[in-house]
Amino acid sequence: MTKTPKKIVLAYSGGLDTSIMLKWLQTEYGAEVVTFTADLGQGGEVEEARHKAELLGIKPENIFIEDLREEFVRDFVFPMFRANALYEGQYLLGTSIARPLISKWQVDIAEKVGADAVCHGATGKGNDQVRFELGYYALKPDIKVIAPWRDWEFASRTDLLAFAEANQIPIAKDKRGEAPFSIDANLLHSSSEGRVLEDPDVDAPDYVFQRTVSPEDAPDTPTVIKIGFEAGDPVSIDGETMSPATLLAKLNELGGSNGIGRLDLVENRQVGMKSRGIYETPGGTVLLAARRGIESITLDAGAMHLKDELMPRYAKLVYDGFWFAPEREMLQAAIDASQSAVTGEVTIKLYKGNATVIGRKSPYSLYDEDLVTFEEGESDYDQKDAEGFIKLRALRLRTLAQQRAKLKG
Amino acid sequence: MTKTPKKIVLAYSGGLDTSIMLKWLQTEYGAEVVTFTADLGQGGEVEEARHKAELLGIKPENIFIEDLREEFVRDFVFPMFRANALYEGQYLLGTSIARPLISKWQVDIAEKVGADAVCHGATGKGNDQVRFELGYYALKPDIKVIAPWRDWEFASRTDLLAFAEANQIPIAKDKRGEAPFSIDANLLHSSSEGRVLEDPDVDAPDYVFQRTVSPEDAPDTPTVIKIGFEAGDPVSIDGETMSPATLLAKLNELGGSNGIGRLDLVENRQVGMKSRGIYETPGGTVLLAARRGIESITLDAGAMHLKDELMPRYAKLVYDGFWFAPEREMLQAAIDASQSAVTGEVTIKLYKGNATVIGRKSPYSLYDEDLVTFEEGESDYDQKDAEGFIKLRALRLRTLAQQRAKLKG
Amino acid sequence: MTKTPKKIVLAYSGGLDTSIMLKWLQTEYGAEVVTFTADLGQGGEVEEARHKAELLGIKPENIFIEDLREEFVRDFVFPMFRANALYEGQYLLGTSIARPLISKWQVDIAEKVGADAVCHGATGKGNDQVRFELGYYALKPDIKVIAPWRDWEFASRTDLLAFAEANQIPIAKDKRGEAPFSIDANLLHSSSEGRVLEDPDVDAPDYVFQRTVSPEDAPDTPTVIKIGFEAGDPVSIDGETMSPATLLAKLNELGGSNGIGRLDLVENRQVGMKSRGIYETPGGTVLLAARRGIESITLDAGAMHLKDELMPRYAKLVYDGFWFAPEREMLQAAIDASQSAVTGEVTIKLYKGNATVIGRKSPYSLYDEDLVTFEEGESDYDQKDAEGFIKLRALRLRTLAQQRAKLKG
Amino acid sequence: MTKTPKKIVLAYSGGLDTSIMLKWLQTEYGAEVVTFTADLGQGGEVEEARHKAELLGIKPENIFIEDLREEFVRDFVFPMFRANALYEGQYLLGTSIARPLISKWQVDIAEKVGADAVCHGATGKGNDQVRFELGYYALKPDIKVIAPWRDWEFASRTDLLAFAEANQIPIAKDKRGEAPFSIDANLLHSSSEGRVLEDPDVDAPDYVFQRTVSPEDAPDTPTVIKIGFEAGDPVSIDGETMSPATLLAKLNELGGSNGIGRLDLVENRQVGMKSRGIYETPGGTVLLAARRGIESITLDAGAMHLKDELMPRYAKLVYDGFWFAPEREMLQAAIDASQSAVTGEVTIKLYKGNATVIGRKSPYSLYDEDLVTFEEGESDYDQKDAEGFIKLRALRLRTLAQQRAKLKG
Repeated sequence: MTKTPKKIVLAYSGGLDTSIMLKWLQTEYGAEVVTFTADLGQGGEVEEARHKAELLGIKPENIFIEDLREEFVRDFVFPMFRANALYEGQYLLGTSIARPLISKWQVDIAEKVGADAVCHGATGKGNDQVRFELGYYALKPDIKVIAPWRDWEFASRTDLLAFAEANQIPIAKDKRGEAPFSIDANLLHSSSEGRVLEDPDVDAPDYVFQRTVSPEDAPDTPTVIKIGFEAGDPVSIDGETMSPATLLAKLNELGGSNGIGRLDLVENRQVGMKSRGIYETPGGTVLLAARRGIESITLDAGAMHLKDELMPRYAKLVYDGFWFAPEREMLQAAIDASQSAVTGEVTIKLYKGNATVIGRKSPYSLYDEDLVTFEEGESDYDQKDAEGFIKLRALRLRTLAQQRAKLKG
Repeated sequence: MTKTPKKIVLAYSGGLDTSIMLKWLQTEYGAEVVTFTADLGQGGEVEEARHKAELLGIKPENIFIEDLREEFVRDFVFPMFRANALYEGQYLLGTSIARPLISKWQVDIAEKVGADAVCHGATGKGNDQVRFELGYYALKPDIKVIAPWRDWEFASRTDLLAFAEANQIPIAKDKRGEAPFSIDANLLHSSSEGRVLEDPDVDAPDYVFQRTVSPEDAPDTPTVIKIGFEAGDPVSIDGETMSPATLLAKLNELGGSNGIGRLDLVENRQVGMKSRGIYETPGGTVLLAARRGIESITLDAGAMHLKDELMPRYAKLVYDGFWFAPEREMLQAAIDASQSAVTGEVTIKLYKGNATVIGRKSPYSLYDEDLVTFEEGESDYDQKDAEGFIKLRALRLRTLAQQRAKLKG
Repeated sequence: MTKTPKKIVLAYSGGLDTSIMLKWLQTEYGAEVVTFTADLGQGGEVEEARHKAELLGIKPENIFIEDLREEFVRDFVFPMFRANALYEGQYLLGTSIARPLISKWQVDIAEKVGADAVCHGATGKGNDQVRFELGYYALKPDIKVIAPWRDWEFASRTDLLAFAEANQIPIAKDKRGEAPFSIDANLLHSSSEGRVLEDPDVDAPDYVFQRTVSPEDAPDTPTVIKIGFEAGDPVSIDGETMSPATLLAKLNELGGSNGIGRLDLVENRQVGMKSRGIYETPGGTVLLAARRGIESITLDAGAMHLKDELMPRYAKLVYDGFWFAPEREMLQAAIDASQSAVTGEVTIKLYKGNATVIGRKSPYSLYDEDLVTFEEGESDYDQKDAEGFIKLRALRLRTLAQQRAKLKG
Repeated sequence: MTKTPKKIVLAYSGGLDTSIMLKWLQTEYGAEVVTFTADLGQGGEVEEARHKAELLGIKPENIFIEDLREEFVRDFVFPMFRANALYEGQYLLGTSIARPLISKWQVDIAEKVGADAVCHGATGKGNDQVRFELGYYALKPDIKVIAPWRDWEFASRTDLLAFAEANQIPIAKDKRGEAPFSIDANLLHSSSEGRVLEDPDVDAPDYVFQRTVSPEDAPDTPTVIKIGFEAGDPVSIDGETMSPATLLAKLNELGGSNGIGRLDLVENRQVGMKSRGIYETPGGTVLLAARRGIESITLDAGAMHLKDELMPRYAKLVYDGFWFAPEREMLQAAIDASQSAVTGEVTIKLYKGNATVIGRKSPYSLYDEDLVTFEEGESDYDQKDAEGFIKLRALRLRTLAQQRAKLKG
């Protein structure tokens, strides 16, 4: 039999749903609730969550509000981008990458305050429940996990609102009805899904988009920027050095205003069904293009091809919530081992949805013509070598051709 | 010791360089030359090659001119696209995929006319020599291969032109000087490289582009089209059924006029150095987006993820010229085994460089809501199942967490 | 709410546990029970199951007994062996490969008799429940699945026996106590696990082994046999053509009597924990060695290396019960596409635990010296070619060396 | 034009062939020759090479003799074994792994003595030339590489012997004729190939074997040993801590005297042909079994499966001579990142060719039953969870089954 939790760290946004959860945890378990609210760049003022938590009776020492934007970008977003990760060939994993960070903080706070349970607000049909919970279990294996959407008895929105009213939880007017779609946001991206977006054969309405203008509405003249890299990570825009979060915010602004980073995707959730999402990742889209650009002149072919082959698996691990699993860490070690010379500057043109690399240079360029000549008059490339190269590569195919002729009879 | 070739099948474009080769083969080996000219959709009139070959003394029965556009798209381009192949994350392999077809025809003609050698016009520093020759050897292992650029003694363009003049080979005025860049073209793409494009930090001049307008010059209003698929391959545009080559040509027109499909890439050649190319693949870029769209609703997650993991290797095999190698055929068999339900229609918006999927539907959609309910009132998804799913996936991580705690001491 | 099943196809061994299940299904659901008993070469007389089922009140038309040995080996074991599949580097997947066949037959019988549910006897902690149920769901998505070990209320063996007695189920004397370990067997292998085998630091007692003598007890003189292959599958022993099941049975006898095929393994179950098993796969061990032998002279390097890279994933899919999943079928298509020339004869020495290939020949050998010479005096291998081959392969490393020198400063 | 080398570091064994090379380098290039002789555990006395080099006129300061056994095992063999590397499923890479170490030392000596060239004694048809030269070029890109077997004019053994006599090179009597097979040896293995071994359908004669008795001749009673591991590498035998080379030598003795580690293999050389080799790797074979044993209880499933999938590529890189390539280093980083808890002790029984793990324990065991229970009475495994786990894993297959039914019907 499972023991009743006594102290629960709740991932608390300050919104209606997690406020209801807060109350429900108190009433369902009689437990002490600790709220944790993180600023991951989702927009809005996280300090409002403090006020709401207090209103709902949470003791000041049980309210944790953290600005995690730099940690998020430095320790999660940038390492993931080193892999050039795309899930199912297209998705930049904006939601996936934020979950392990929240899990880690909830667990850390649980350790600090002596809580025996954690609680998240993800539903029972999606990926996020998995991501949160794999994070919790990996970091604190004896933790009790509460997922109210899977557990509580509320059968409808009406039930939820009734519970809210019965418990004096303030309900904003626009929360009375069901939202036309649901949103997740952080510094890397915003995603929209559900309801008006459910038919994959119907274009997304324009009001869905949160942080990008449409290509059609973007400026008629291109914006050209230079992104500087050091050892695989971006460090500057147009020569100005920036912190990770500042840099990504700036790229979001530049990309979003140029109509860059929209994605309308039907994807495979790990819980077994397909879903359709609208993603906006303006800064990330620019960053991926720029990273490909700087890697194209600084990464050796063998390293690049291995990275490309490992990438889909890495992306799937992140998508599936295995950030803290050893196989993700092993792949990260391989990827990071390739990045020491990924340094230099990429010129990108931003124009109406396009992020186009138009220049790249590096002090460690492998393209540099000086590199491929070793001393005066003696290049390391002799066209005659190509014949031997081809002959030996062809040898097995020539032998095989004789086998095939025999097989045919 | 290698025997002197007696009859040589030359891949002949009708241009200056391969005309010089034609003569050189005659004078160097005293061999009978058979010319093979293929229409792969490169543009221009292939029949002109007949006239030129005759002028250079080739007997009519030794002149082969073939329209291979349908074979090219049906048997090479479309199978490759089933893999969603991108070399180094970006390149659609437009040059690579044409070479094995030419090799195959040269070998077939050699068998027919009793030739003992084949000859191609690729240089000794590039990928194409490898692709041609691996094709030759795989299909006719005892063939003699001649690669004049690696073998002849001409040290400069002046030498070449002198040889041309001495042998009455007509030289067009604009061929006297060195071209500012070199071009390869076929129905899938055109590529430009060399000289004015050599500095990877300098943007490509606009006159380099052959078949696309710039996004800036593209129309201000989007074009929306529907592409129909059957079993993995495109079969119609806006409801009109088309042959493979006709369809690709139409997509080129639609994409090219909307500024779609330009790529400025520094890539790793298989012969060991990096090179910079400007690629234009308007139709292919639209097609890749559309294929991703139709696969997103018709491919099972397991199939899609396996395809994504195999793709980089498949792309590298095509790039490296291993089209006729068993490992490419094995991967193709795996990929093709996934495509039977990739049928339906994708709606794409073309606008200033962007090819955006905005709708997809299929009679075999795995997204269809009817599919995920099995009978009245009983869905196959129970949110409670998610808890068990997560618990068991987390189990090894929880055990591992205890190991890690022990390791830390 | 789930509907109560009306007619259930039970995988019935005739043993005590599945007899209890039979009764329990009747009493718990009031359902009609259909028994299915398969001869997969596990040993024992399957017809006894008919008698027992009748005793327990099953109608004759509801008793299905099938000899599936040939289908098992031909359609499941041999295709898997084409992959040279080893789970975690060592396990020949003897239990895993039998489950989908049983699932398939249960589903087919369910369709035939109009049953709405299937039931298996696997426990809730192991892999087999997953393998059975993935098979059921893949083949008949609306089937109701019953797994009594997960569902019933019996808390102990005493409870089970009490239920058996109360329901007039005969209990053999040696079934009163708990067995010292549990066994699974079929024509490919037998496995033992649990209880006396639980401490992975304690050697398995000799009485655990079912079908192999120990190497110490095996004959002091070797047995040398020849195994013939056609297109990847074994077809004869010492020149005598045999059906798949007959051949595997013969290899079991030969291997088992020579102490071959024992494995003591701690493996990772897919449900998240490690377990220790003792496997005996005498014929399979000989077959794997022989297959490696025949492939070594008939498979091209590219095909072999791709197979080797795909193998671990293939093995994991089979282990995890994804036999009917598209990704397993895709990999199978790739593997099968490589096998057409895997024909010939391998000589193997069997001696005290060792199965050693000492000879191999094939009409399609790629090793044959005649193959590597194309015509008189002209080999296709010129040692001078090696220099060019190496130079071009080294080129990127030479360039990289200069990058690394710069990085060091 | 290539410059004539002035000072050449020769990999010098002291044997006839490399003595001829020494003279040939002097006469062909008029170059100063520096000899490098390494003790890699091949057997024999390396100091004899000093005497021979002096006889041939090499100045004392130009003679380098190094005992590299510890470096070889610690920095090359053990890291490779962390990958459980097997080329083509079987070969433990004994020759491949020694080459990069020799290359590294030759290059280091070249830097020290100011030599501009290096020379090795590998033939032009094999793998070793590639391995040596990729090593040279990766470490010193401007080095001149000399491979006499590819370059000199000697057409036969008679020519060689004539040159030797003409240059006062002593010829041992048994070197007058052609050896019946050729040998390579180091502390990890010995290999034999060529001549009497060329027919892959003829068993290897017993006199070929160098360091193992046959299973038939091995003792009739088993030897049981315990191998201790720390962080992935073996550190002790039967409780006695040993240096890497000492430990491997001891395992060779134990394995070899028990008939363990023989392999008769037809393999694919990277230069395009198949060859047959007889390998003896007694200690390595025992070590691989032991490593699998200790990993089986200490490695997480995700880490183990990733390792297994990466292994074939790692093995091929080592086989192909890409030890110093970034992709090998990346894979090594991934593998090494998994090894911190691979600590403990494995019990192995050695008996007539079999190395059988019969026990394994670790302070960090993931199998330990205590680990899988978190607190009193509360296990982290609930059989009910399995249902949800299976249901969600099956969901996509159930949906797919409906698609397949539609496709059929």
